[in-house]
Amino acid sequence: MCAVCSGRRARPNLNLLLLLILLLGPHTVEGVWPLPQAITSSTERYPLTPQAFCFSYGRRSAARPGCSVLDAASERYFSLIFPDYTYALNALSNLLLYCPCVPDNLSVSAGRASLNAETVWGAYFVNKTKIEDFPRFQFRGILLDTSRHYLPVKTILKSLDAMAYNKFNVFHWHIVDDPSFPYQSHTFPDLSSKGAFHPMTHIYTQSDVRRVISYARLRGIRVLPEFDSPGHTKSWGKGQSDLLTPCYKGGIPSGTFGPVNPALPSTYQFMERLFKEVSAVFPDSYIHLGGDEVDLSCWRSNPYVRAFMQKMGFGVDFAKLEAFYMEKVVNITSFFNKTSIVWQDVFDYHERRSSLSVVEVWKEGCYLCEVRRVAKAGLRVILASPWYLDQPGPTHNWARYYTVWPLAFKGTEEQKSLVIGGEVCMWGEYVDATNLAPRLWPRASAAAERLWSNEKQTSSVDKAFPRLQDFRCILLRRGIQAEPLYVGHCKHEYHSV
Amino acid sequence: MCAVCSGRRARPNLNLLLLLILLLGPHTVEGVWPLPQAITSSTERYPLTPQAFCFSYGRRSAARPGCSVLDAASERYFSLIFPDYTYALNALSNLLLYCPCVPDNLSVSAGRASLNAETVWGAYFVNKTKIEDFPRFQFRGILLDTSRHYLPVKTILKSLDAMAYNKFNVFHWHIVDDPSFPYQSHTFPDLSSKGAFHPMTHIYTQSDVRRVISYARLRGIRVLPEFDSPGHTKSWGKGQSDLLTPCYKGGIPSGTFGPVNPALPSTYQFMERLFKEVSAVFPDSYIHLGGDEVDLSCWRSNPYVRAFMQKMGFGVDFAKLEAFYMEKVVNITSFFNKTSIVWQDVFDYHERRSSLSVVEVWKEGCYLCEVRRVAKAGLRVILASPWYLDQPGPTHNWARYYTVWPLAFKGTEEQKSLVIGGEVCMWGEYVDATNLAPRLWPRASAAAERLWSNEKQTSSVDKAFPRLQDFRCILLRRGIQAEPLYVGHCKHEYHSV
Repeated sequence: MCAVCSGRRARPNLNLLLLLILLLGPHTVEGVWPLPQAITSSTERYPLTPQAFCFSYGRRSAARPGCSVLDAASERYFSLIFPDYTYALNALSNLLLYCPCVPDNLSVSAGRASLNAETVWGAYFVNKTKIEDFPRFQFRGILLDTSRHYLPVKTILKSLDAMAYNKFNVFHWHIVDDPSFPYQSHTFPDLSSKGAFHPMTHIYTQSDVRRVISYARLRGIRVLPEFDSPGHTKSWGKGQSDLLTPCYKGGIPSGTFGPVNPALPSTYQFMERLFKEVSAVFPDSYIHLGGDEVDLSCWRSNPYVRAFMQKMGFGVDFAKLEAFYMEKVVNITSFFNKTSIVWQDVFDYHERRSSLSVVEVWKEGCYLCEVRRVAKAGLRVILASPWYLDQPGPTHNWARYYTVWPLAFKGTEEQKSLVIGGEVCMWGEYVDATNLAPRLWPRASAAAERLWSNEKQTSSVDKAFPRLQDFRCILLRRGIQAEPLYVGHCKHEYHSV
Repeated sequence: MCAVCSGRRARPNLNLLLLLILLLGPHTVEGVWPLPQAITSSTERYPLTPQAFCFSYGRRSAARPGCSVLDAASERYFSLIFPDYTYALNALSNLLLYCPCVPDNLSVSAGRASLNAETVWGAYFVNKTKIEDFPRFQFRGILLDTSRHYLPVKTILKSLDAMAYNKFNVFHWHIVDDPSFPYQSHTFPDLSSKGAFHPMTHIYTQSDVRRVISYARLRGIRVLPEFDSPGHTKSWGKGQSDLLTPCYKGGIPSGTFGPVNPALPSTYQFMERLFKEVSAVFPDSYIHLGGDEVDLSCWRSNPYVRAFMQKMGFGVDFAKLEAFYMEKVVNITSFFNKTSIVWQDVFDYHERRSSLSVVEVWKEGCYLCEVRRVAKAGLRVILASPWYLDQPGPTHNWARYYTVWPLAFKGTEEQKSLVIGGEVCMWGEYVDATNLAPRLWPRASAAAERLWSNEKQTSSVDKAFPRLQDFRCILLRRGIQAEPLYVGHCKHEYHSV
């Protein structure tokens, strides 16, 4: 298998390819988003024509013909660059990567790209351009929530397209939560057959999940699944009895249920089997374990939970119980070779923080204070707080998501290097397939540039605005339902169905 | 021509038909939106089958077969009631209105509907139901702004579908404004060829406009065009020289332009020709003349405008100049048999208010105070202030649009009867085809029920919520991209493309 295809390490090459391809479109350098780390463009112009244009592997490229990621990307982007030429694409596709027209026209071997275009007639031009590029942060995520509302697979795939155009590289799939459990587990089929909104139409089958993962992979995107517990699990209880804690009122069970029951051995046996399956289904090395917003009142009401705490020596400190539970789950997943991510709550109440790996900061207020605390504790950090985009806002709010400075805290270089990236969160209370795209784009594009580009080169909202407007039109032309930033128009408007 | 087709007076009949048809779908009475004035439903149930179901004209109905509005509505709604049966529709369409299966099954002659369903086998049932219905307000509008962003004709037609489902009956087409002039005038073709965002792709041709009007008419919707002046006319100036006022700075023209120049006779000759065309193109008896937010500084700077004011005896009272201009335009359009509507600004500065007919109240603050003032002056009122939906908001804000009481001002019955209705305004600064539908629906549905239904029967937000949720799912099933109200699901989700 070729280098680009074999692992995560080679992904920047794919991103570089996509960037270069973006440049090849009939756009100016100014319309490129996110901004590359270094770009020099001369006035020298070369004509570009679909007949003579091809992607080819450089002589010194480690990636060779047959590399599925690059082959597929070439095919997708050819028709994006020459939208009017798609009809002939099939006939030409063999030519794409092997045609001898321009040797060395694209080299992706050394993290550097150089383009030498042949001088032929054509309608498109490209300026002589040299780009050096790499991402500022390695983790650039978008969270989609498929529990509060079910998102059809097609909607997820479309979002992956848009993510790739924005160089997001992590799809954080908040796949289950209180309202519904759409993940169809082969180990525990009742979880979705009883816990989904509908057991047939509102689920993700194994084949759906595979399709999402494979679609994402070809676009340089990792799929990070989240199975949030012990809170946010109401829907789990429908298909798995004795998993949730029975709440008590006046000394007897009230009939309602709280978080996962941490006092029963059966809980951990269930989690082990579930995470064994999940670890195999989702190949990414990361897994998100949630751990946020645990309502303690139900645990507190339950005499068996209280007795368990006495036995364990936790006294009445329920934070200890939470920490105990999370550590068990972290251990289970690390047994399956996964690096676990948790929401900041777990870090906040946990005494033995060294058992944690990656902490996602999501709460409002001084989020950089929390980033600093986590980095000081030597753990890796993902920043989400400033990028909660599920609440709507006029699109001019995009600047709010742009003027975020993830490293503006007091700390050593080493501590800052622990901030591995950031994430846009699109929670599902008010969002489904009807409004997901315009609510995400182009507001998430603001976060995309912050996470990819050099901060000093992208600190001005005023300078970014026309580029983002231009990029939003590119997204429209590619079929992404990105909402407008302000009064104006695009050459190709979105045509609703 | 049949009664239903011949004029506005008969429209409630069409609405009644649509309501009845909604009831026939596999929905409970509770899912009907907006709530009918009176509805009684017994537990007696009749089966319903597409094979034996038809619409037919009642014996005493003034509307006869061949009435295009009802014939088209029957055809549309048949496939909405029996969505799985659409394939066979063409074969059956001749049967629809003439089949002898149930005499008198639908009578629309007396503002009363009675349904007698034949007892046949089938998958659908309908409860024995009696409905009496009529709208609370005769004017139930939605404003779309096609100047700040161009809306493709398809997007407008789709909005008309959704409007009909919500019993809106006025499409207020804010067709031109400062940013662009997409209306292609045959008298002044330069207005769009120079003033549109693009002279070919971002315009409404005469045939586009006819298509919109005809599509709206078949859905019981009137098209109210707005040609807003003297402000909001920057785009007009591009295709019509000497129309806008040259602004002066330091005694010389600054090169910028202000509102329409009220001091030149050519202005009124132009308006006469333009409104002659517009009055013929848009058959509705109403026309909206705008008149809002006139920036006086440019008029003030122009020595010729000041001289004109002296000559007219206006002194330095620019409100008098505004009033003079608006009265001229009102007179022009009334010559073409149009009733003019103006924004509240015109009422506010106008001394001879009796020359006005209908005033639209749009400003924030105590809007009912303004409604009262206009009604006291004996003019008709349309209320828009509480229904500015162009700014996004979480959908739970729908209650804000629901708990509006348009008649809650001190006034006589006669004054209250001057409030002819209300309007949802969807301005275009941040809205185009990408986000129009989810931003409108179902929030505009809240306004729809307020304008249609009995206020006492619809004063509870809690009671409305499940009905609106249900109705939103119906909208989805009919292809309207209505956003979710809260966590949950619909049987048929929206599938993005």
